[in-house]
Amino acid sequence: MELTVYLAGQIHDNWRDILKNEASDLNLPLTFVGPMENHDRSDNIGEEILGKQPNNIFKDEAASAINNLRTEILMNKSDVVIALFGDKYKQWNTAMDASRAIEKGKPLILVRPETLHHPLKELSNKAQVVVETPQQALQALSYVFS
Amino acid sequence: MELTVYLAGQIHDNWRDILKNEASDLNLPLTFVGPMENHDRSDNIGEEILGKQPNNIFKDEAASAINNLRTEILMNKSDVVIALFGDKYKQWNTAMDASRAIEKGKPLILVRPETLHHPLKELSNKAQVVVETPQQALQALSYVFS
Amino acid sequence: MELTVYLAGQIHDNWRDILKNEASDLNLPLTFVGPMENHDRSDNIGEEILGKQPNNIFKDEAASAINNLRTEILMNKSDVVIALFGDKYKQWNTAMDASRAIEKGKPLILVRPETLHHPLKELSNKAQVVVETPQQALQALSYVFS
Amino acid sequence: MELTVYLAGQIHDNWRDILKNEASDLNLPLTFVGPMENHDRSDNIGEEILGKQPNNIFKDEAASAINNLRTEILMNKSDVVIALFGDKYKQWNTAMDASRAIEKGKPLILVRPETLHHPLKELSNKAQVVVETPQQALQALSYVFS
Amino acid sequence: MELTVYLAGQIHDNWRDILKNEASDLNLPLTFVGPMENHDRSDNIGEEILGKQPNNIFKDEAASAINNLRTEILMNKSDVVIALFGDKYKQWNTAMDASRAIEKGKPLILVRPETLHHPLKELSNKAQVVVETPQQALQALSYVFS
Amino acid sequence: MELTVYLAGQIHDNWRDILKNEASDLNLPLTFVGPMENHDRSDNIGEEILGKQPNNIFKDEAASAINNLRTEILMNKSDVVIALFGDKYKQWNTAMDASRAIEKGKPLILVRPETLHHPLKELSNKAQVVVETPQQALQALSYVFS
Amino acid sequence: MELTVYLAGQIHDNWRDILKNEASDLNLPLTFVGPMENHDRSDNIGEEILGKQPNNIFKDEAASAINNLRTEILMNKSDVVIALFGDKYKQWNTAMDASRAIEKGKPLILVRPETLHHPLKELSNKAQVVVETPQQALQALSYVFS
Amino acid sequence: MELTVYLAGQIHDNWRDILKNEASDLNLPLTFVGPMENHDRSDNIGEEILGKQPNNIFKDEAASAINNLRTEILMNKSDVVIALFGDKYKQWNTAMDASRAIEKGKPLILVRPETLHHPLKELSNKAQVVVETPQQALQALSYVFS
Repeated sequence: MELTVYLAGQIHDNWRDILKNEASDLNLPLTFVGPMENHDRSDNIGEEILGKQPNNIFKDEAASAINNLRTEILMNKSDVVIALFGDKYKQWNTAMDASRAIEKGKPLILVRPETLHHPLKELSNKAQVVVETPQQALQALSYVFS
Repeated sequence: MELTVYLAGQIHDNWRDILKNEASDLNLPLTFVGPMENHDRSDNIGEEILGKQPNNIFKDEAASAINNLRTEILMNKSDVVIALFGDKYKQWNTAMDASRAIEKGKPLILVRPETLHHPLKELSNKAQVVVETPQQALQALSYVFS
Repeated sequence: MELTVYLAGQIHDNWRDILKNEASDLNLPLTFVGPMENHDRSDNIGEEILGKQPNNIFKDEAASAINNLRTEILMNKSDVVIALFGDKYKQWNTAMDASRAIEKGKPLILVRPETLHHPLKELSNKAQVVVETPQQALQALSYVFS
Repeated sequence: MELTVYLAGQIHDNWRDILKNEASDLNLPLTFVGPMENHDRSDNIGEEILGKQPNNIFKDEAASAINNLRTEILMNKSDVVIALFGDKYKQWNTAMDASRAIEKGKPLILVRPETLHHPLKELSNKAQVVVETPQQALQALSYVFS
Repeated sequence: MELTVYLAGQIHDNWRDILKNEASDLNLPLTFVGPMENHDRSDNIGEEILGKQPNNIFKDEAASAINNLRTEILMNKSDVVIALFGDKYKQWNTAMDASRAIEKGKPLILVRPETLHHPLKELSNKAQVVVETPQQALQALSYVFS
Repeated sequence: MELTVYLAGQIHDNWRDILKNEASDLNLPLTFVGPMENHDRSDNIGEEILGKQPNNIFKDEAASAINNLRTEILMNKSDVVIALFGDKYKQWNTAMDASRAIEKGKPLILVRPETLHHPLKELSNKAQVVVETPQQALQALSYVFS
Repeated sequence: MELTVYLAGQIHDNWRDILKNEASDLNLPLTFVGPMENHDRSDNIGEEILGKQPNNIFKDEAASAINNLRTEILMNKSDVVIALFGDKYKQWNTAMDASRAIEKGKPLILVRPETLHHPLKELSNKAQVVVETPQQALQALSYVFS
Repeated sequence: MELTVYLAGQIHDNWRDILKNEASDLNLPLTFVGPMENHDRSDNIGEEILGKQPNNIFKDEAASAINNLRTEILMNKSDVVIALFGDKYKQWNTAMDASRAIEKGKPLILVRPETLHHPLKELSNKAQVVVETPQQALQALSYVFS
């Protein structure tokens, strides 16, 4: 049995690479998917495909349509979702992806530093598992195979 | 035909009261529901019912369970959801409620100042309607009855 | 038992009024809902609420978001959908609404002149009932109460 | 990860072949499915299997039943749908397939020339992505794998 | 609390009237709906609305489309389904309605003489309750209110 | 807005009456439904309707079919479920009803003495709210209206 | 792309073998599943596993539980269902399986001799395709791959 | 065709191993999954990943979250569920998993000694098959392939 894991959340550090490496070291049968991690390309993908838009709002609308296409396709293919919240940025799309996972019946593992527990309390309550580090999320997944 | 409208989002000003008054002035057949607007009570409701918890994380967990009970019950009863984002706070539960509405097939009207368009771009793309003021959200609803 | 009927389709003649009058004459317990029938207002509703848009495509996008809000809310409330195709215009939104009704499990009555049978053949095949006049659609509904 | 793509829309030029060739050149892991592209066979398939029908309406009904069988089976197998609208014909079955994809939760990429933006505005608003050429649709899909 | 009960099954005796009278005598808050009980009208309703059809198969197709419209609308409105099988006729539409109720999550009460237990064994196994007389079905429903 | 509340769980004391009285004292707009509380009648309802069965297993099967009919109908009508576990009996049907509520998307309030926390830990984790007394469950519901 | 086809219907002649052979001759990528075709074993499977039952009704109940287990598992795995009605027997489980396929969103091909058109008219109307021979059903499936 | 089977129920004897060995002897194409069978690890997994919790209730909550993660992921992957009840312990999570399987549309085979028939009667009534030994459950599954 193999599982596909969607890695939602911030794209400003290399937490996904660390997670993938550890999973590989443990020989876990996991395939990881997730959003575009190149921030500039993610912001510009609308204009890359559709050309120059009238203003920044429409540039954002064009980009987000294609980013959401990616998320929809890949999350539909996933068995479980890990969503990581960090200290910076508003990360509303992470919250959106986490909630989407819950409503689609995909079990959600939420990763957040303890300092964020208060603003994330309603989302934490709906997540299947809440941990503080990506390593703990991987431990939870490895438990499925043990 | 009457509609029930869930008003998700910040509870730090009186935007809900203004909206309700305008809807009343227009004689629109709308019933409004939403989260507990007394911030302190929302934070303390877990301990109010279950008694003192071991620490703040468990206090938050107890409170969020009951806040989510309220949201689940009331959103299930709703025909449409308005979610308002303001300039302050992380508002992850607003993003969660907005995404929950989308996945449940409840049409979502997103209200946000133009200054927030970039961090909200993926959520805006999935909303049925995006406006800048609660008045515009009400205009969109009144159009349903015209 | 009362039924709510969504009347999808062209807004260029008064077929809805004729249908409503006949239903009223027959004392059928039907409530009719449907799209905005004022064509200009339907095209301009985006700018009416959101203000001037950069160009006609974005004006159309703003209008269609609000027209779709109306359709989503009202079709969710409906028990059955009547979709009428006439000789003029492309009527792709009628085809979209008809297909949406089928997928939502709302029984669909398709009304079209015999001259349109060929281009509508796949949609006709998925409709629950296909008739040629609104009067026949109403006869089918009155049969539910007889 | 491999994706299956349903190509809805006109069968009067070779846009599907061009798309398939480009996807092959890019080594994208995509499998393409779609409607019968031989127009005469599509119109005659009912009588091919069931024999001569009483008149053209029943010939069309027999054919459309089998064309819809094909669409249902193949769209159920698909991860994403591309629907292309051209300048000619009424294309109501394309609109029906596009709406069906949306309601089934299959992300929809709509392809249409800018000249068609007005009659397609409600369908465009519900599509996940709207582009003007099949090449742009393929760019959006290739982004999922980048 | 009121319940709507769909009465599927044979239309060749007055079992529905007997059931309705007993429910009325017991003051049970039940509303009963069901198929057209005038057999001739049920067979002719297609031609009554659409006019003369080319042959009997198409006459049957036209009639069954409208009979199914009635069943879809009324069963969607129902909270529970009673399906009665008698000794005569093939009653495939009764079996179809019973199975439809099960798949829609509407609890099914199956009524059949013990002599029919063998051919109905798979359907009986999927029904929530199996009884031999309409009176017993009504007893089961009255238990819900006791 | 009125809510219907299904009260699952033991029928060996009068906790439901106490809850109903308190809700009435508080003027909460709640309608309560639940299983047959007369234990003997619940065990005998199969034979009451269907007559003497061959042995106790078939007597139980006949009774449970009708008890489940009642639960299905009433839980489908409910907006929220309260499930109470006490110290006695195996209460597997309470666990079944609680899980059924969760899967149907009905928010679940679990009531159990702290002494039962260990054997109920997985079910508690899936409940929306866990409390120790019926009074606390009612407090949680009254919060929805405050 | 491979398809799994559930073959519902009578087990009194070898129509399934003929169909499988023809599909094999045409190299169609089809896997066929279906009910137990050994009639005696199908009737006795309950007692084969559970031992002697108190009477024939309970013997039938035990057998049908296991036959339905098989149907549920295999139909869930299927992409399309063929249901064949013959001249003999009541075939209510065939009607049940056909209706189950429709409600599960599995496209249904109904095979029946023209002499049965009247009693099957409502079921025919809900089927995606209606043909008179298994060969025609296979032709319809082969069209999906052409 | 291969099937994945979730084995819910007690972890206090080696019934799963016996079942797996027999399936292997019979060359049945079955993959078995299920809960953590090491009881201590199952109870401690929360603290193993998250560290020491404030008290036993929170230790249980942490463990059950991760046990439920495992169950959700593996049951979603399963085609059929076997749930075994033994004489000891409360086994509420077994009842919960059995009910969860029913609501998810996964066919359920219930295994229980005849001595437990009374307290399990409602759950037995909703199961697709009820047997007394794991061997009988395997016989029922092997029938699917015969």
